[in-house]
Amino acid sequence: MLEDKNRQKTSLASLGEFGLIEHLTKHFKIQHATTEKGIGDDCAVLSSSDKQTLITTDLLVEGVHFDLSYVPLKHLGYKSVMVNLSDVYAMNAEAEQITVSIAVSNRFPLEAIEELYSGIQLACDTYNVDLIGGDTTSSTKGMLISITAIGKANKEEVVYRNGAKANDLIVVSGDLGAAYLGLQVLEREKQVFKVNPQSQPDLEPYTYLVERQLKPEARKDIPRLLKELEVQPTSMIDVSDGLSSEIMHICTQSKVGCNLFEEKLPLDPQVISTCEEFNIDSTMVALSGGEDYELLFTISIGDFDKIKGNPNLTVIGHITEENQGMNLITRANQSIKLKAQGWNSFDEENE
Amino acid sequence: MLEDKNRQKTSLASLGEFGLIEHLTKHFKIQHATTEKGIGDDCAVLSSSDKQTLITTDLLVEGVHFDLSYVPLKHLGYKSVMVNLSDVYAMNAEAEQITVSIAVSNRFPLEAIEELYSGIQLACDTYNVDLIGGDTTSSTKGMLISITAIGKANKEEVVYRNGAKANDLIVVSGDLGAAYLGLQVLEREKQVFKVNPQSQPDLEPYTYLVERQLKPEARKDIPRLLKELEVQPTSMIDVSDGLSSEIMHICTQSKVGCNLFEEKLPLDPQVISTCEEFNIDSTMVALSGGEDYELLFTISIGDFDKIKGNPNLTVIGHITEENQGMNLITRANQSIKLKAQGWNSFDEENE
Repeated sequence: MLEDKNRQKTSLASLGEFGLIEHLTKHFKIQHATTEKGIGDDCAVLSSSDKQTLITTDLLVEGVHFDLSYVPLKHLGYKSVMVNLSDVYAMNAEAEQITVSIAVSNRFPLEAIEELYSGIQLACDTYNVDLIGGDTTSSTKGMLISITAIGKANKEEVVYRNGAKANDLIVVSGDLGAAYLGLQVLEREKQVFKVNPQSQPDLEPYTYLVERQLKPEARKDIPRLLKELEVQPTSMIDVSDGLSSEIMHICTQSKVGCNLFEEKLPLDPQVISTCEEFNIDSTMVALSGGEDYELLFTISIGDFDKIKGNPNLTVIGHITEENQGMNLITRANQSIKLKAQGWNSFDEENE
Repeated sequence: MLEDKNRQKTSLASLGEFGLIEHLTKHFKIQHATTEKGIGDDCAVLSSSDKQTLITTDLLVEGVHFDLSYVPLKHLGYKSVMVNLSDVYAMNAEAEQITVSIAVSNRFPLEAIEELYSGIQLACDTYNVDLIGGDTTSSTKGMLISITAIGKANKEEVVYRNGAKANDLIVVSGDLGAAYLGLQVLEREKQVFKVNPQSQPDLEPYTYLVERQLKPEARKDIPRLLKELEVQPTSMIDVSDGLSSEIMHICTQSKVGCNLFEEKLPLDPQVISTCEEFNIDSTMVALSGGEDYELLFTISIGDFDKIKGNPNLTVIGHITEENQGMNLITRANQSIKLKAQGWNSFDEENE
């Protein structure tokens, strides 16, 4: 769990709740003028603004959302922040603040929580967001992380899920499916390790996949890029549960249909080669993998020239009338109904 | 856990995550014009404002913060909201929105979660706040509730913990210690029930205490009352961990000392009689009990006439210079150093 097994271990009880919060947050610096008061009072205080405020929250549970046997705590802290910032960027907004609450059992020494917070701090520094509050408590089992992110945008810039219109183009940033395959690689190594603890995993052929799983980056650059290109998306969502599930959210809320083109789905070469090795269909992985934290959005067809050829963006389909349904057009030019096979934490297998 | 043991039980897996959120939140109505968009997108959206925004968050863990063997789920939902609203009122502000995230193991049927949400909804209706988002997921053990509350106040009205000055009066709303004693009564009944499951508890002599523990009310009325009285507190905090711990926060952050007068501490008659029955010192209970969710604040001595005789407010002491320390003046006119014996979730006993 900790990278250096010989490091000092300090019990959380020796610090107490207030001591722990102060200890963990003393190196965080406030970067936004809008953060009038961060940690240390009953509430954080944000200054008044002529922009809209965006709020999103996520709860991550050990054993459900992450497995500490192969996720380093620093990466977990970083990723927990990314998951939330991604939701802010998916509104075409800038993230400015986060609150972080954690519950941990006493099996975690202080040094483990410090590792987690070092990842949170790296995320705050890299993405220019202020940690402004939170709660730190004990749990009876395992670790839980609850993060709320706060963002800002001009009213006319906010992009919802419900604005897609027939004939709009469907665009996705980056590539898809790598994070899911990274998880498969890590799960396989875990099983190998269980059988033979002396084995040294060779993750070299999978570096991109493992990095996408363990250290995803939220697409802060995309809202900025779209502003530069003078493109206002008609709808937007981030790809957390899988492309298929996300486009279905957009279509349902916008009351439209869609055609996604299999041949257009952006795949990294490592995704293609690893799908062959694992004998999985790469289209399935791109559609249902999830955790890519790319942005999926629709634009008016009149904006096509503005994004054409941009290496960050791929047009993968178009919006249709609602009665046409939500379809994948295969390489063989067959139309198949999309299914949401996104991750569902209430599946019976989690019992 | 559920009041009617014969009610239908629906598994959470049968609804799925999105179905569950929709099912639980469909009866919540948006009440604030500032809530531009509630549940259903990547973020909630709040309109721009010339007021400051206040943010607070709390994480409640089954087995640490609550015990479902004597806390009805509806009360738990209500109290979880109160804990957060209380922090907003403690800034002299109005609460407008909340997000609610829950993690539950599959031992909870849908009907249990509905009970929890009915308490959350009652709190939202009663306190006029909008539920604007959240996350719903499974846990490997027990129930967790993470709530973030968002409030608004004019910049010049916000009250921090750090503004108390020497000679300011220390004022508390309501009375102290009842919630703690309510917990002692419930714990005793739980032990009796373990020995004799046929026993019928007689909670009649303890109704106020049990209600203060199970269904506390945050003091939304106090910031309004203070405005009416034209009193701007110099510092404020809510009493969640215990009076002693809270006044010490104010003194430390304001760099001042204090004298609290034992004879002034407001106690309900049920607190006095139950302390006698349990053979506990009522002053100890008032100082360290916690969970009262009253507001503790300081005012300039010049404002005394404005609050004098108000049945909601009691002057319990005054602020001194920092070098005088933080003291309780006993009925025998002895000065005793205050100790923070507030609740600490990292005590070894929680291991």
